[in-house]
Amino acid sequence: MSPRVPLAISMGDPAGIGPEVVLKAISSPAARRTIDPILVGDAGVWRATARRLGLSLHLVPGIEPSRRGSTRSVVTSELPASVRKPGQPRRTADKAACGGAAHAAILAAVRLVRDGTAAALVTAPISKAHLAAAGHDFPGHTELLSHLCGDAPVRMMMVGPRLRVVLVTTHLALAAVPRRLNQAAVLETIGLTARALRIWFGMALPRIAVTGLNPHAGEGGLFGTEDTRVILPAVRAARRRGIHATGPLAADGVFAQAVGGAYDAVVCMYHDQGLAPFKLLHFADGVNLTLGLPFVRTSPDHGTAFDIAGTGRADPRSMIAALRLAAALAPRGKSTLVRPALAAVN
Amino acid sequence: MSPRVPLAISMGDPAGIGPEVVLKAISSPAARRTIDPILVGDAGVWRATARRLGLSLHLVPGIEPSRRGSTRSVVTSELPASVRKPGQPRRTADKAACGGAAHAAILAAVRLVRDGTAAALVTAPISKAHLAAAGHDFPGHTELLSHLCGDAPVRMMMVGPRLRVVLVTTHLALAAVPRRLNQAAVLETIGLTARALRIWFGMALPRIAVTGLNPHAGEGGLFGTEDTRVILPAVRAARRRGIHATGPLAADGVFAQAVGGAYDAVVCMYHDQGLAPFKLLHFADGVNLTLGLPFVRTSPDHGTAFDIAGTGRADPRSMIAALRLAAALAPRGKSTLVRPALAAVN
Repeated sequence: MSPRVPLAISMGDPAGIGPEVVLKAISSPAARRTIDPILVGDAGVWRATARRLGLSLHLVPGIEPSRRGSTRSVVTSELPASVRKPGQPRRTADKAACGGAAHAAILAAVRLVRDGTAAALVTAPISKAHLAAAGHDFPGHTELLSHLCGDAPVRMMMVGPRLRVVLVTTHLALAAVPRRLNQAAVLETIGLTARALRIWFGMALPRIAVTGLNPHAGEGGLFGTEDTRVILPAVRAARRRGIHATGPLAADGVFAQAVGGAYDAVVCMYHDQGLAPFKLLHFADGVNLTLGLPFVRTSPDHGTAFDIAGTGRADPRSMIAALRLAAALAPRGKSTLVRPALAAVN
Repeated sequence: MSPRVPLAISMGDPAGIGPEVVLKAISSPAARRTIDPILVGDAGVWRATARRLGLSLHLVPGIEPSRRGSTRSVVTSELPASVRKPGQPRRTADKAACGGAAHAAILAAVRLVRDGTAAALVTAPISKAHLAAAGHDFPGHTELLSHLCGDAPVRMMMVGPRLRVVLVTTHLALAAVPRRLNQAAVLETIGLTARALRIWFGMALPRIAVTGLNPHAGEGGLFGTEDTRVILPAVRAARRRGIHATGPLAADGVFAQAVGGAYDAVVCMYHDQGLAPFKLLHFADGVNLTLGLPFVRTSPDHGTAFDIAGTGRADPRSMIAALRLAAALAPRGKSTLVRPALAAVN
């Protein structure tokens, strides 16, 4: 039996469903067998959540070796009981406190990966608004982690049992996508995808599909020119670098082909183009994997869900999938851990 | 046992896979039990295709009652053998001949529905380029049929066993979608969808989901304003008219909800937003149903596929699904047959 993989798990926003899905997930037999969790966050939040869920939780310091019946923990905040209630807080000060605690947990969790205590990072969902209220203005985890790693170019890959998609652009008005798209960004996305599939997923020559921007990938310039002007040159440049990239391909056909086994990942031009098909297949078990960081980082494919926080109804399947994927990729991820790039965390 | 439903089936482009998938489909036991096909097109093309496929085909005039062992046919062209070869013709004159024959078959098939000989129309795929070469410049069937019916406002609904989607805009560069979108077009699409689900599908109060244009449906104006400026007012106007419409909804969540049973159809803002998820689920068995015509018209969800025409490898599943859907909807479709609107066909 292979040893359990130590994973740093940041609690996410203390008022959201993060702590609940983490505790449910690490209690699942499937996760327990393969991972050694290190809970990073607010001890009071973990304990109150465990009590509500009727789970036994014996926390020991994160630096101690893991033992049966106990869970390692690194404490990064001590929120008062009035703040660490589940459900979105109304007072600005409480929002800032939640955002600050979520931020501190992420930083400490990254340090655990950096110093080798943990093999990979798994993050529970945060609130951008709470993070901003605490003075940390990032669109999300991905950008914050990129910043902590010396502004490394990063991309979001969504990973499911049947499909992997990577986005060139993300949270952008649709009208801004065509003018924001450029050859360098498409090429960089293809490159990061190829690298992740080779090193982390162990594929010798991954086959990468690249979507077009327009219907039927522009049908020879009939509906838009970005496909031939921007995407095609990027695909050709990738091929010159030895990457098995194909495209631009019509987005209404490529996902069925990928699921059928023709491609190992689909590089998509914008948010809904990739995520609408992905979440249709993987509504409950999709995992967000960050490409471009010097370590493996996964997260579940859902948000804080403040509306159901504290009810015990949060579905842990995506978090379980995030833990299992991190544990599976971490042994290969270590080889890419470039320490100097992490200087910004100190 | 209910009588078989008479369907007018236009052959599509004679050089494409249309004639092949039609003959394969009407030979399938599932289709034979429920439909009474009337083949509309080139007798030489049907016979040559049947010979290649090893199918027996005994054609009788379309006005005769259908009999066991024979297939009704209306002959609308007599292409020379040199032209009616499968595979894309090179000579412009041959392209025009193919386009002209395809066009004549559509017109005659519409007449059969108009005069009550057929209960619904099923069309095999055409080539827009060949149609244009013959002097009939339409982007596709849908627009041609709209023109034949007095320029009725029409929309494309894709129908599969698990999902139905309707498009507000179709073959348009992505950059043009945001400025082309307007409240009237969204409202009209919702109205046509509600009407089709009520009358053709027999749903008392269909539940219609309406997607946003931007990621997360704009997240309160954070990524684009069309969701609140254009789509939300259209949804509200539809609700005031008694339509159970919901939206704008984030496109990366709505398809899983619809498949899960929350909605009877999803109204989508642009081509890939609706068709990428749809074709992922229904790659081989999706059917194109035209909304807004005074009769039921379906077609398979694929093109002429000139590259495999004549090889016998064309997959008839989508055509079989198109025939079965037309036969299922036709009895209800008759009640909406508005004769004056068809004057343009004469």
